[in-house]
Amino acid sequence: MLQRYLPILQWLKVYNRETLTSDLVAAVIVTIMLIPQSLAYALLAGLPPEVGLYASILPLVAYAIFGTSRTLAVGPVAVVSLMTAAAVGNLALAGTAEYLAAAIALAFLSGVILILMGLFRLGILANFLSHPVISGFITASGLIIAASQLKHILGVDAGGHNLLDILMALAGQLAHINLPTLIIGVSATAFLFWVRKQLKPLLVKVGLGPRLADIIAKAGPVLAVVATTLAVWGLDLQAQGVKVVGQVPSGLPGLTLPSFDLGLWKQLFVSALLISIVGFVESVSVAQTLAAKRRQRIDPDQELVGLGASNIAAAASGGFPVTGGFSRSVVNFDAGAETPAAGAFTAVGIAMATLVLTPLIFFLPKATLAATIIVAVLSLVDLGALKRTWAYSRSDFAAMLATIVLTLVHGVELGIIAGVGLSVLLYLYRTSKPHSAIVGRVPGTEHFRNIDRHQVETEQHILTLRVDESLYFANARYLEDLIYDQVARNPELRHLVLMCPAVNLIDASALESLEAINQRLMDSGVKFHLSEVKGPVMDKLKDTHFLHDLSGEIFLSQYAAWEKLRATSQPCDNN
Amino acid sequence: MLQRYLPILQWLKVYNRETLTSDLVAAVIVTIMLIPQSLAYALLAGLPPEVGLYASILPLVAYAIFGTSRTLAVGPVAVVSLMTAAAVGNLALAGTAEYLAAAIALAFLSGVILILMGLFRLGILANFLSHPVISGFITASGLIIAASQLKHILGVDAGGHNLLDILMALAGQLAHINLPTLIIGVSATAFLFWVRKQLKPLLVKVGLGPRLADIIAKAGPVLAVVATTLAVWGLDLQAQGVKVVGQVPSGLPGLTLPSFDLGLWKQLFVSALLISIVGFVESVSVAQTLAAKRRQRIDPDQELVGLGASNIAAAASGGFPVTGGFSRSVVNFDAGAETPAAGAFTAVGIAMATLVLTPLIFFLPKATLAATIIVAVLSLVDLGALKRTWAYSRSDFAAMLATIVLTLVHGVELGIIAGVGLSVLLYLYRTSKPHSAIVGRVPGTEHFRNIDRHQVETEQHILTLRVDESLYFANARYLEDLIYDQVARNPELRHLVLMCPAVNLIDASALESLEAINQRLMDSGVKFHLSEVKGPVMDKLKDTHFLHDLSGEIFLSQYAAWEKLRATSQPCDNN
Repeated sequence: MLQRYLPILQWLKVYNRETLTSDLVAAVIVTIMLIPQSLAYALLAGLPPEVGLYASILPLVAYAIFGTSRTLAVGPVAVVSLMTAAAVGNLALAGTAEYLAAAIALAFLSGVILILMGLFRLGILANFLSHPVISGFITASGLIIAASQLKHILGVDAGGHNLLDILMALAGQLAHINLPTLIIGVSATAFLFWVRKQLKPLLVKVGLGPRLADIIAKAGPVLAVVATTLAVWGLDLQAQGVKVVGQVPSGLPGLTLPSFDLGLWKQLFVSALLISIVGFVESVSVAQTLAAKRRQRIDPDQELVGLGASNIAAAASGGFPVTGGFSRSVVNFDAGAETPAAGAFTAVGIAMATLVLTPLIFFLPKATLAATIIVAVLSLVDLGALKRTWAYSRSDFAAMLATIVLTLVHGVELGIIAGVGLSVLLYLYRTSKPHSAIVGRVPGTEHFRNIDRHQVETEQHILTLRVDESLYFANARYLEDLIYDQVARNPELRHLVLMCPAVNLIDASALESLEAINQRLMDSGVKFHLSEVKGPVMDKLKDTHFLHDLSGEIFLSQYAAWEKLRATSQPCDNN
Repeated sequence: MLQRYLPILQWLKVYNRETLTSDLVAAVIVTIMLIPQSLAYALLAGLPPEVGLYASILPLVAYAIFGTSRTLAVGPVAVVSLMTAAAVGNLALAGTAEYLAAAIALAFLSGVILILMGLFRLGILANFLSHPVISGFITASGLIIAASQLKHILGVDAGGHNLLDILMALAGQLAHINLPTLIIGVSATAFLFWVRKQLKPLLVKVGLGPRLADIIAKAGPVLAVVATTLAVWGLDLQAQGVKVVGQVPSGLPGLTLPSFDLGLWKQLFVSALLISIVGFVESVSVAQTLAAKRRQRIDPDQELVGLGASNIAAAASGGFPVTGGFSRSVVNFDAGAETPAAGAFTAVGIAMATLVLTPLIFFLPKATLAATIIVAVLSLVDLGALKRTWAYSRSDFAAMLATIVLTLVHGVELGIIAGVGLSVLLYLYRTSKPHSAIVGRVPGTEHFRNIDRHQVETEQHILTLRVDESLYFANARYLEDLIYDQVARNPELRHLVLMCPAVNLIDASALESLEAINQRLMDSGVKFHLSEVKGPVMDKLKDTHFLHDLSGEIFLSQYAAWEKLRATSQPCDNN
């Protein structure tokens, strides 16, 4: 029991020198990768750079204690940082103390929501985010994030939380582009793209193992950071208008108490809920991918607790919302991390960086951080998914397109809510007109098939309708229409059989519809029968009025129905 | 084509003297019944009494032209009148010109919505109203309506649109009860209850046919109206504080143009949509019940057009929202109506009443109208449905209870919206954890059954999982968890078969989950197979990457999977 809620107890007792070595190596690599990322995502969220570092210390320790994935690396990630900026940007101006306080409150609230979801086993809420909606949302977010960073590349001032606003603001600022900033920004972006696409194959060519090559390539941003920092310092580019990170307070974050202003919580609640769910979905899918590779398992409900604890830890140390990140977790895994202790060691690494490195990043240009963000998020943009989804399913495509368009035009929150709403509506619509077929007997067999597709036997007095869907409120009335239609069309009809091999559920609405159908068919002189009703559905029907009032019978197999009804409905032929 | 949109063309050409006689008889009976009802429902909606008569003339003619039911009688009904009062009461004070204008605009808007729904075949929207939600809504509305009429029975002033408000207002007025009004109200109510419960059996006993007895019993309100009107006139009760209908303008309604104030339309839109859907659901279920008795059929999409035309006709003649009523349609049917011409003749009857009868109802006490409303709506209250629904399905019960409680406490609109939202959520929740079973082979057969319920054969290296639900976004992740769990638990596993006989749909989310499962099982050295995939599902899967990447096979039958995998996974046993 205790182990379920404290997964650390499971792995700590088998911890040995070998796992320690592996974890330490992975921690060093992830630390190097995380430093520029943390600074960059703080910038994206509209927060001071050190906040990104703070959000990469205690949360990792909390996850090491409460998380169930052996290799997940938590911290600030792009999409959640964008959502933070959108949520907090509605309440305060970036750079103010209120802004920071709201970001901290958001992390705290999100942590509380995640833990409650975990304790009440509500991980299932994440299911409402369909894959097309998530994919569309991440693509649109990636585009917004990339656009939002262009101002740092161009060296201008421009804000906005959706693509239109951002591009309009940028267009108005084109006259004020700062050339040295532009040169640094464009060359850093080009270098990072080259690193991402070309460096790994190159390193493999010169003889490095593919895993090592991958890890070195992932450290590209560090090289860009060092080079551009040196350039700004050496060439005194700050004097020419290149914006730098500047003074970053050195030292570990103090413990902070989040704001307990209920009004603020109320304003942040929907944002915190969305951030929690999006963060959880992203994190758990990374965790599952990595766990499967080593035949380990993660517990999604405990993952909620782990991520919740991480967010509360973030809030307690002056950070902002965090979740499990894709690329850093993959690096952690590839670098050989074996237990969450690697995360704890990474936390120590980042803590040391905040103690020692902060003076060194004074001259780090914001354009370089923007370049790392742009290159990272553009890999999230997957417009090809639109084409693939269109080919497979029109309604999934509609949900995806709506999510993308609304996110780009109206911002992240409306985009994701509209996507979820639309996919639910489309699903209900789809099941509200279920596939159905009038079936007949394949001659000489006990099988029954669609009369439109197969050469089958039918009887004038008997009609068998097979419905391939659970019967519930969204299609109950459709079923009624379908049956009344058939009855009105076939004046000779005496028996109607509803064949139910694919009916997994009959809800109260469908039950009432079946009762109405039974009554109305009786009024028309037609007997109503069911066949091939599944066990669990039959269990439910057993105690109902419907079964008592049914004018016909319930047949175990359609063949039994056919045999019996054919015999009784044609007494003349039998003479 | 023209006949589809103008159903009158279908029956008019076979119209003859016989049908004319039947229709005329039915029209006379329905007219007598409709006069007090129309006045009462106008009162319930907070409108002048003549508006109720106006809403019972042109709408009937419009429905006769555009409706598909042969016997449906449209006009003001209780629930829609209550919804009208709630919607318009938010915008204006009852009795003002603005209030009447808003009610007319509501009818017009509702008519437009209904016609658009009909033309775009959106009758399916009504499916979102599950039976438990409608039943709960009507029960709660009935209670609110009955409570709202108590003020007329007591002769006091008290308002409110939900049960709490109304009861609180009444409680504050108990000191001001008007005794003569109370006597009239209570005796009229008691008389009408007696008519409803006892008169028909009595008439049958003395030798009348049950149908005729029923029709006479339904005319009970007319008797109450005549008797109490005479009492008020003869005893000069108006002087003692009995409120009467008073001066009603005589003559036919003039044609009115509804308000084209866009701001007003915006405010009324949600109410108009809800009224349209609730009215449609009520009307179409009555129409279907009656049509089935004569093996006729109705076209739900054209019904939308018919009801839409009726509402626009109501707006054009100064009326308020109308729909097909249950009791009046049954009377129409029982009285022998054969075509919608009966409705047109009823309209003529009501028109004559507005010309001739209005001076006669000056002394009609409002308490009598309130009594007819109370007796009519209390028959709609069905608290027993709560018990029946509880016995059949907990989640349907929850939706029903939420609808009742929220309607009573917060009013009709929030009640119905919450009910719809909750039933959708509960359905998604229910399908998000589908029934599933690990199956094994029933020895010596080709059948496979749940290992927990049956004595079956299994193989160490092969695991077969049967999922009894369509695979879609709400359960895609659950499926992943389920499978990863099994794989992590069975280190010997080499083949996992997903058995899909009850899978009617695989959406894009589930497809991606299947791809992820395939990939992760491959990483764990387990092959992934499907069996018994349905035709339409297979058609969709055919062109996907998933099928191309699948590590295992797709088997037509589970037995084929079992035979083949058992042979290949145990090469040693075969030596």
